[in-house]
Amino acid sequence: MGKPVKHVATFLVMVLLLSFSLLAEAKSPLVFQTDFGLKDGAVSAMQGVALGVDPDIRVFNLTHEIPAYNIWEASYRLMQTVPYWPTSTVFVSVVDPGVGTDRKSIVLKTMSGHYFVTPDNGTLTLIAEKMGIAEVRQIDENTNRLPGSNESYTFFGRDVYAYTGARLAAGFISFEQVGPLMSTDIISISYQKAIVKSNSAIGTIPILDIQYGNVWTNINKSMLDTLLLHPGDVLQVEIFNQGKSVYKGKMPFVNTFGDVPDGKPLAYYNSLMDISFALNMDNFSNVHKVFSGPEWTVKVEKITR
Amino acid sequence: MGKPVKHVATFLVMVLLLSFSLLAEAKSPLVFQTDFGLKDGAVSAMQGVALGVDPDIRVFNLTHEIPAYNIWEASYRLMQTVPYWPTSTVFVSVVDPGVGTDRKSIVLKTMSGHYFVTPDNGTLTLIAEKMGIAEVRQIDENTNRLPGSNESYTFFGRDVYAYTGARLAAGFISFEQVGPLMSTDIISISYQKAIVKSNSAIGTIPILDIQYGNVWTNINKSMLDTLLLHPGDVLQVEIFNQGKSVYKGKMPFVNTFGDVPDGKPLAYYNSLMDISFALNMDNFSNVHKVFSGPEWTVKVEKITR
Amino acid sequence: MGKPVKHVATFLVMVLLLSFSLLAEAKSPLVFQTDFGLKDGAVSAMQGVALGVDPDIRVFNLTHEIPAYNIWEASYRLMQTVPYWPTSTVFVSVVDPGVGTDRKSIVLKTMSGHYFVTPDNGTLTLIAEKMGIAEVRQIDENTNRLPGSNESYTFFGRDVYAYTGARLAAGFISFEQVGPLMSTDIISISYQKAIVKSNSAIGTIPILDIQYGNVWTNINKSMLDTLLLHPGDVLQVEIFNQGKSVYKGKMPFVNTFGDVPDGKPLAYYNSLMDISFALNMDNFSNVHKVFSGPEWTVKVEKITR
Repeated sequence: MGKPVKHVATFLVMVLLLSFSLLAEAKSPLVFQTDFGLKDGAVSAMQGVALGVDPDIRVFNLTHEIPAYNIWEASYRLMQTVPYWPTSTVFVSVVDPGVGTDRKSIVLKTMSGHYFVTPDNGTLTLIAEKMGIAEVRQIDENTNRLPGSNESYTFFGRDVYAYTGARLAAGFISFEQVGPLMSTDIISISYQKAIVKSNSAIGTIPILDIQYGNVWTNINKSMLDTLLLHPGDVLQVEIFNQGKSVYKGKMPFVNTFGDVPDGKPLAYYNSLMDISFALNMDNFSNVHKVFSGPEWTVKVEKITR
Repeated sequence: MGKPVKHVATFLVMVLLLSFSLLAEAKSPLVFQTDFGLKDGAVSAMQGVALGVDPDIRVFNLTHEIPAYNIWEASYRLMQTVPYWPTSTVFVSVVDPGVGTDRKSIVLKTMSGHYFVTPDNGTLTLIAEKMGIAEVRQIDENTNRLPGSNESYTFFGRDVYAYTGARLAAGFISFEQVGPLMSTDIISISYQKAIVKSNSAIGTIPILDIQYGNVWTNINKSMLDTLLLHPGDVLQVEIFNQGKSVYKGKMPFVNTFGDVPDGKPLAYYNSLMDISFALNMDNFSNVHKVFSGPEWTVKVEKITR
Repeated sequence: MGKPVKHVATFLVMVLLLSFSLLAEAKSPLVFQTDFGLKDGAVSAMQGVALGVDPDIRVFNLTHEIPAYNIWEASYRLMQTVPYWPTSTVFVSVVDPGVGTDRKSIVLKTMSGHYFVTPDNGTLTLIAEKMGIAEVRQIDENTNRLPGSNESYTFFGRDVYAYTGARLAAGFISFEQVGPLMSTDIISISYQKAIVKSNSAIGTIPILDIQYGNVWTNINKSMLDTLLLHPGDVLQVEIFNQGKSVYKGKMPFVNTFGDVPDGKPLAYYNSLMDISFALNMDNFSNVHKVFSGPEWTVKVEKITR
């Protein structure tokens, strides 16, 4: 009788290992961001490389509509989105005007445990500020490069970044195996920080809420709380491009767009709790020719309750 | 000998439970529709929230190119698409011009067993008509809201709708746990229904087949069958905007675009079996300035075989 | 003692079968390409049909932004992308100006083991050339058609191609069950092949790198190697539309865009290792009004080192 039971036990171990290996798919999501657009096959080729690394990998898209070469906006989209993704998610961001130059290819791990695979060109400016850098590693392209791709000089996104990101998300390489540890002093884009004085605040327009033409600032609720801002308060808003006034007007601070008539301006906290400006049911950016980027500044003053 | 066998049995139960729990991923697909576009991180943040609820959830996109604030088109896209998705699929639709007003947040279950998470603003007009309402529940935002998001007034799509939809699709809450039962008398957009008289039919242009500029109507084959319409029949078609004639012409009813020369008009049944108008290899909408919405009406008359 | 062990053995077989069936999800990715755009519900309906076939199927998008009716570009996008997807991936490509005519619906298997579900209209021209045809089968629409869809004449993409592709990717039908074997002499688009003479090469502009306006050719590195081209060599480039000269200029052959000043022209190998032309940080196509398609030809001559 002993032998069958022994066989049973052996089988059980096999079955358990099998089951655990199925359970053990503690795989991380892989999220892509590029300025490639979706009109050609570039993004799909990147996803195919990821599936080739691991047929079970789960791939997602942040956006592929970053304006060409706009590193600032790539940085902003990451900051806006990443906090809503689970810890250990791997982001591959490819906005890479310096492709082929000696800019480094890196993987950054934030204090929050998210990973970023990208050229070191400023793309991680805002994420590093917001979430804190745990470690940065330079990608060793000898080991972390799609086999057979070494003749290509130009498609790092597919051959190095997608491949490395997929192997990291699948757990086929550890963070240490990406490559050697680097200084955390990565490339950063300089921009005007938000400042609050007695009754007013100064900041920049980091981005538009492009679909609706709303104007977002980098001035957060946590700073404006010192102004004791309440719904119904009136704000004086002035917007400058390279120091030249482009818009000046008064608008109420409200909780909801519906609190002002159609077409009228309003100030509100956006989903990041930054003070923002809109025209109810219209497009503030188009109407007033206000756009975004480090060259834009904004001044907000509380006039009265 | 008894003990090993007992252990074996215990192990077996564990293994079986393990295996069944793996099998038991009777999880529903989660499908997003918005007017956000894909240029920023809003859609990705919604998907990140869903992955945070359940790392195994399967997310899909219907479209994010609904024209801003166009509730009618949101309603139409759902009606056009939902019947092709499996029962129990959860749709999250966020076209929400009234965000922040007192419009309700609801989950509707159709007679077909599909779920819809959306503001109650008319988005479900056509789905309710076509598939029938089983139950409507108002979302209890105290329990069904992304933890830590209660300061934000504006991004219901992410904090309430994506979060609730993901929990429902993952099976972490039942439909009953969404919130209290409501009346099925949800907000509905009024529009002209299709009517058939002796030799003619009147209806609306609910939507364009936008990629090709084809003009779709709401007059179904099942109604036109009373006109005994056959391929080769000639139709007199007149199109009105707010009652004013914009287009009048004759065209054959055909099975396939290739039945008329390039550039010539034709009438055909679209994939919903509604009578539709096109120019072979050209764009009817652009050429004749015909668009869509409840303000457009169309008259179709059978002239001759 | 015999009986419990027998039961144990029976259980074990069940558990093993269960585990293997879980493991046995050797399912293939299903990748969609169309000219439908993403503004309406057509692509989502196709994906819903696929999920209805198999709730575990994994669906991806190559692109849905093929210009309407542009079979050539559909062919090019497949050639550009497919090699980066795993063997046995199933591609469903629907660019179908002849829908409803007697064009055939086919599934082609390449020598590489990739599958293509598509109308036989030239879509597979470049894939067939590049990867080789193993077998072609005509879809038997009696068995391979979404149940209940037989009244619709126009949406083959959803009712036949998505449905058949999903069943093939899920392993619910074998390739043989698609339908009868056909000749491998499928419809092909004629175009000018690349030719190299002593110091020059002639070819076409099969496609633009549309996001950046770079001009790609079909002249591969493997051909130009006979010209002993090295970084720093100067090329004389002339571009013709239907034989008429549109652009003529000199530019260096470089490894990286950064090797020339902003705004200056350069020649480089793209990610397919084909010689290509660009303006550093600008848009060659827009500036010089150079576009793509079989009607464009290009002549490249090596002048000097």
